[in-house]
Amino acid sequence: MVIDKKSNTPLYIQVYENFRDKIEKKELKEGEKLPSIRSLAKKIDVNNITIVNAYKLLEQEGYVYSVKGSGTYVRKSNYDIDMPFVDGGDIELMAGGVIPLSKDSINFASVSPTPEIFPIEEFKQALMEVLDRDKGNAFLYPEINGYKPFRESISHFLQENYNMDVAIDQIQVISGGQQGLDIITKALISQGDCIFVENPTYSGAIAAFQSRGAKIIGIPMLKDGLDLEILHKHIKRYRPKFLYMMTNYQNPTTYSYSPEVKEEVIKLSRRHDFYIIEDDFLTDLNYDENKKEPLKSMDHMDQVIYIKSFSKIFMPGVRIGFMTVPKKLFKDIIKIKHTTDISSSGFLQRAFDLYLRKGYWKEHIENIKKVYTKKYNTMVRELERLKRYGVKLYKPNGGLSLWIKLPKDIDSIELYNECGENDVVIVPGKVFFIDDSIYSNYIRLSFGAVSEEEIKKGIEIIENCIRKRYKEEDNRFIPFV
Amino acid sequence: MVIDKKSNTPLYIQVYENFRDKIEKKELKEGEKLPSIRSLAKKIDVNNITIVNAYKLLEQEGYVYSVKGSGTYVRKSNYDIDMPFVDGGDIELMAGGVIPLSKDSINFASVSPTPEIFPIEEFKQALMEVLDRDKGNAFLYPEINGYKPFRESISHFLQENYNMDVAIDQIQVISGGQQGLDIITKALISQGDCIFVENPTYSGAIAAFQSRGAKIIGIPMLKDGLDLEILHKHIKRYRPKFLYMMTNYQNPTTYSYSPEVKEEVIKLSRRHDFYIIEDDFLTDLNYDENKKEPLKSMDHMDQVIYIKSFSKIFMPGVRIGFMTVPKKLFKDIIKIKHTTDISSSGFLQRAFDLYLRKGYWKEHIENIKKVYTKKYNTMVRELERLKRYGVKLYKPNGGLSLWIKLPKDIDSIELYNECGENDVVIVPGKVFFIDDSIYSNYIRLSFGAVSEEEIKKGIEIIENCIRKRYKEEDNRFIPFV
Repeated sequence: MVIDKKSNTPLYIQVYENFRDKIEKKELKEGEKLPSIRSLAKKIDVNNITIVNAYKLLEQEGYVYSVKGSGTYVRKSNYDIDMPFVDGGDIELMAGGVIPLSKDSINFASVSPTPEIFPIEEFKQALMEVLDRDKGNAFLYPEINGYKPFRESISHFLQENYNMDVAIDQIQVISGGQQGLDIITKALISQGDCIFVENPTYSGAIAAFQSRGAKIIGIPMLKDGLDLEILHKHIKRYRPKFLYMMTNYQNPTTYSYSPEVKEEVIKLSRRHDFYIIEDDFLTDLNYDENKKEPLKSMDHMDQVIYIKSFSKIFMPGVRIGFMTVPKKLFKDIIKIKHTTDISSSGFLQRAFDLYLRKGYWKEHIENIKKVYTKKYNTMVRELERLKRYGVKLYKPNGGLSLWIKLPKDIDSIELYNECGENDVVIVPGKVFFIDDSIYSNYIRLSFGAVSEEEIKKGIEIIENCIRKRYKEEDNRFIPFV
Repeated sequence: MVIDKKSNTPLYIQVYENFRDKIEKKELKEGEKLPSIRSLAKKIDVNNITIVNAYKLLEQEGYVYSVKGSGTYVRKSNYDIDMPFVDGGDIELMAGGVIPLSKDSINFASVSPTPEIFPIEEFKQALMEVLDRDKGNAFLYPEINGYKPFRESISHFLQENYNMDVAIDQIQVISGGQQGLDIITKALISQGDCIFVENPTYSGAIAAFQSRGAKIIGIPMLKDGLDLEILHKHIKRYRPKFLYMMTNYQNPTTYSYSPEVKEEVIKLSRRHDFYIIEDDFLTDLNYDENKKEPLKSMDHMDQVIYIKSFSKIFMPGVRIGFMTVPKKLFKDIIKIKHTTDISSSGFLQRAFDLYLRKGYWKEHIENIKKVYTKKYNTMVRELERLKRYGVKLYKPNGGLSLWIKLPKDIDSIELYNECGENDVVIVPGKVFFIDDSIYSNYIRLSFGAVSEEEIKKGIEIIENCIRKRYKEEDNRFIPFV
């Protein structure tokens, strides 16, 4: 280790950087032990306190963890930023710890659609028309809350698709759903505030809420929605600022709320005066006759902040979505949006507006539903085979993922690693749980980015990995019914 | 005041909301005194501490300020969101208090360019080519840090325009300069951290830094840069996390840093280990031979985080800019960008990339400089007349604004109001100062959004407003030289 005692950089920073680089270059691997404070201090001839501070910093930055009386060890690595590409789905995978995707790997991790189903022609036409119609005005700053005609289209869109009544003054255009979470975090969370989330849930939301020091409480997710008993208990105890939920085809469980649970949750939010953040990115993708509705449709007291993302049902790269804003919060949200990025691209807002006004939407949704229904059915058909190994499968009849429970004996991280070595990428359930020490035996398989052929080939590989373990553990293995 | 003691909303919140609404509805005006704690507590029959907490919250939220031994007073109002339109320039005006802009008012408040000078044809061509070349891929998620070929173009752009050496791995694409400030705030500021800003400075930056509870120290801005004496003193005292500065044609003073002051600031940041956030949005607009260079060009120790906005020199509605990231911060910034909005629009990144590769940039800058030089000269010529009323004018020979000092006797807010009544919108200097109690006699006149004719007409109106006051106060008025 090279330490420059003449440098302006404090010694403990230099020591910190030395270890950080070794860990990032994987010269020091997960679980490896760092030298003891005394021995290292002696070796490079510095004060013990220098090493103590360096190790402290490494721990703060999440590179190491210390075990009382034993020593300091290297943590599992953070996001690997050298991934070939990254999207809202894959980041969860990255957080999980990570084999980079190779070009020809089968990616069951991404919930994002693939370019073939993008309505490029229609959207291109809209883009062109906007340029011809608005000329340079298309590139001025739009209003902070969004280009007004676009907000009109959105209000109409909500009425038509979910019979939802939202005035254009209560619509805030955002640069994708994640920005909605960022803005809400800034508007509602101060250090130490309590908020509720479904457990398991979307890790990108957790990251946003944590960024302002929220105390995050997970409420177990059941097949018909949140566990109301536990919700009741925790509300009294924690007085949450808000509850974050995904009403339909929840991520990762794919469960949808029953009308009864929806009713109850809204009632509670009114009685105990907390907001509900409804993150809706899949409601439109039902593959049976049972069309889902957002919670917001039942909200008559302005309790629900509804965030709509188009990344999974339109095109991720457009980065345009919207949220509904309770009157009480409107002024705050405007200020926060301005401080966050002034406004979302006026050009793309105008194009999206025109796209909606031309009535392309309904047809587009029908098209992608056809494609996804086919993939969904193939997924389910192929996965049925795995039941014989004690694998449990929930059928949401919608959305872009399947949530699978493995027999207790099979650890999802091990399975994830073995699949990875065979160029099949799955998401171990662990990364979605608040308390990641439990629930080691779930996996999420998404079919947004895979073809029919890949589905068949990929699930066969997954099956082999499971069968192997099944054989190995034959004698003590009891498949459960 | 109506207080509901049965409600779930804590009493002090109810009191807070009562005052907040009165202040926002202007029922309580700037400078008005709030009732004393005791009298109010008695009147609505609550604890003193309830009122104390309510007043504290009002102060935190910027609605009031308290004067020791005297009482609590209403502050000047925050953003008024009922403005017909809003941009990065006008928001400062809004913060100032505010007459809405009418269609035919002459707007010296906006620093944004007008559509006539947007390179629409070339950019449209780039947009088209991207759609034909990349098809649906144009609308996939790009990498979090930005579409790689675009980062290559940026690296080349920096080399060519400012002989700045920045590797593509140290470039983070952002959705406009303001997002750069938001990301840095998240990366570097925790509650109570000290940061330095130029005084006066851009109010949008202050809003971002305050959003995470930074303690903001203003360093006076002199004609050749920061007041080094005071900077030295304050560094020892406050140990800042970073210094926020605009090296060339600073907003609002229009001053540019001398090479000497630049050198010294960089030295200090190295010696005392704080970052420099360089916000560059005008460097390219010099109207004499003296081409300016960013501070970043002199940075060999990775001390400077350089934020480049294209809103004022290209098109505001594109919402694409970039920042350079010190190696130490790279992983953090990536995570924060992802949590903020996943990534900036891949489509616009690809189009901007192509636009740069086709070499349109140089010609574009030459074009807008021609237009702006003409406006700048007209501004200066017309404003020369005002000297006879004791008005002092600084000539930056670049940028998009002029910073004007009125005689002490003329208050900028009064002048701003009177001009407003005559459909001329100026920005009172007050809104740029950290301590808004002083410096009442500066105004900023920007010429981004006004035509030659409007400049002449507008300045005549301003002159009349000043002359009137000059006449009125004839006898006691001594114009200073």
